[in-house]
Amino acid sequence: MSAEDRLKELGIELPTPGPAAGLYSHCVQTGNLLFVSGQIPVVGGQVSRTGHCGENITLEEGADLARVCAINALAQVRAYLGSLDKVARVVRLAGYVASAPGFVEHPRVMNGASQLVLDVFGEAGEHTRAAIGVAELPMGVPVEVEFLFEVS
Amino acid sequence: MSAEDRLKELGIELPTPGPAAGLYSHCVQTGNLLFVSGQIPVVGGQVSRTGHCGENITLEEGADLARVCAINALAQVRAYLGSLDKVARVVRLAGYVASAPGFVEHPRVMNGASQLVLDVFGEAGEHTRAAIGVAELPMGVPVEVEFLFEVS
Amino acid sequence: MSAEDRLKELGIELPTPGPAAGLYSHCVQTGNLLFVSGQIPVVGGQVSRTGHCGENITLEEGADLARVCAINALAQVRAYLGSLDKVARVVRLAGYVASAPGFVEHPRVMNGASQLVLDVFGEAGEHTRAAIGVAELPMGVPVEVEFLFEVS
Repeated sequence: MSAEDRLKELGIELPTPGPAAGLYSHCVQTGNLLFVSGQIPVVGGQVSRTGHCGENITLEEGADLARVCAINALAQVRAYLGSLDKVARVVRLAGYVASAPGFVEHPRVMNGASQLVLDVFGEAGEHTRAAIGVAELPMGVPVEVEFLFEVS
Repeated sequence: MSAEDRLKELGIELPTPGPAAGLYSHCVQTGNLLFVSGQIPVVGGQVSRTGHCGENITLEEGADLARVCAINALAQVRAYLGSLDKVARVVRLAGYVASAPGFVEHPRVMNGASQLVLDVFGEAGEHTRAAIGVAELPMGVPVEVEFLFEVS
Repeated sequence: MSAEDRLKELGIELPTPGPAAGLYSHCVQTGNLLFVSGQIPVVGGQVSRTGHCGENITLEEGADLARVCAINALAQVRAYLGSLDKVARVVRLAGYVASAPGFVEHPRVMNGASQLVLDVFGEAGEHTRAAIGVAELPMGVPVEVEFLFEVS
């Protein structure tokens, strides 16, 4: 089953990919590697939530926001490659979680993004990951996720 | 127009590349990928400013410091490759911005580095980016920027 | 002298590689690049220390913990590749150091990890690095280190 087919079966409709928040591109390919800029949980052109996990954002909300970052990444990848089926595998996710003092559940927040790419790409979705708790993120969002794919 | 020519036209003279701040190298090439270690705004062997954006460092000062990081990166790349003209394209910048509580303008800080590589490399300077707000940085600097280039 | 021989000479016995702390893999290879997920100082299945450098963790303790992260990474790499001798070179380390306000000695903390890979891989252990001070890390650990290797 292809990634595009799985996405359909999951009932996920990718949004229109948004503009960059600065002087950068969302996707750059070098050889077989496709780098994707840090994605934030923008929905319909608006930042959906601001704050810090462990303060005004719960673990579950954080994981949902990480999932939105992954959906936004896939929207950028499809716009760049034409189809998600050109992705050979997911290589790396880096998760940046705005964290109140004492919040240390970054892996569970990031699982929201990891589960999404596993659901969409199956075995080819298995990836490495770094997850860290940061002080602040652009526009006050609670989660930012960066992606690296291998393309065929 | 070549990167070295553009640099000259911009009136930018690259500094003597400084030593590493620890047990690492500034540049490592693997295949066509040239990884460059996190660069900090050292000028003439001295850390030029310390502090946090949103506290004692303004947005404009932060962007200037990010630009200095990019200039220092280019100095390391030229020392390693012999000439900036061996760079095929800029692939990724990662920007770490020491942030006081509530400072969320990391993209505009990082634009200082992004604009510099766009000015020097033109279309080949278009890159992906992650920008995050961190608690502290080495030697108390307000900005650190890591780079990935493709070489020809 | 091979990496496995050097490891033996150093008297380092790699631990049984531990499970991932979430929905990710410890190692993913794409082309000649081997990405390794962020490693934390788990010893015998337990987080050995929690806290922040500059608060309850000294510089020396932080460097020791960074070394443990590197040992854990090598355990994952050997499990994945079969032998460390398949590593052609170390490319990049990214060090995330949980930092109390004012702690800026991240390079010296990270030297604990850098020295270990230099000891094991010799010249092929020379690597690029980013070191930053973060707010919080998974499970409250003081140090997390991510690795990128080139394999032959």
